[in-house]
Amino acid sequence: MFASLANTPEPPYYAVIFTAVREDAEDGYAELAHRMDELAGQQPGYLGVESVRGADGIGITVSYWNSEESIRNWKANLEHRVAQRKGREGFYRAWFTRVCKVERAYSFELTG
Amino acid sequence: MFASLANTPEPPYYAVIFTAVREDAEDGYAELAHRMDELAGQQPGYLGVESVRGADGIGITVSYWNSEESIRNWKANLEHRVAQRKGREGFYRAWFTRVCKVERAYSFELTG
Repeated sequence: MFASLANTPEPPYYAVIFTAVREDAEDGYAELAHRMDELAGQQPGYLGVESVRGADGIGITVSYWNSEESIRNWKANLEHRVAQRKGREGFYRAWFTRVCKVERAYSFELTG
Repeated sequence: MFASLANTPEPPYYAVIFTAVREDAEDGYAELAHRMDELAGQQPGYLGVESVRGADGIGITVSYWNSEESIRNWKANLEHRVAQRKGREGFYRAWFTRVCKVERAYSFELTG
């Protein structure tokens, strides 16, 4: 599987869909986002992430987890909470976080 | 809510997360993707869509639906099936479709 698509196991598992509209300011955002990706990958129950940011400031990040408990733990992580606060105070014009149970999955990959 | 974020109701509802890596070829892709967005929006049970395509050809589209039945009907739509076949035959190097139940949601919007 491509590095950019998460190589998740058979369902069921959990997904956190984070969609956001950025403010114009760039101050420290890329570094913080990179650090959060790195930190998320070290959490128990983390299965992978898929993330795209468009030129217009709209971004979608979907992280995958093996349980609701692992999502709760990641949400409560202290360094992550500091980043969440920064998100509320300036990086985003609007965001949506949706916690989901993945029930079915289909995939395709070109071979050769 | 911003036009670019889906103004979904209180959970529970359903999400289809479609993540894909594009081939380089552009032939007809943008038109077909636009037509599918338009057609999806006309289906019973459709709640909204959020979609971002990165410069590197990676894209994430999340569509929201009020029931699993509405997702099944959209999957089976004839014009959509023709598009799905084109997706398999050339637009994508790899893709993942995940059908999820949205259990919780949080949102934020700057005011003023």
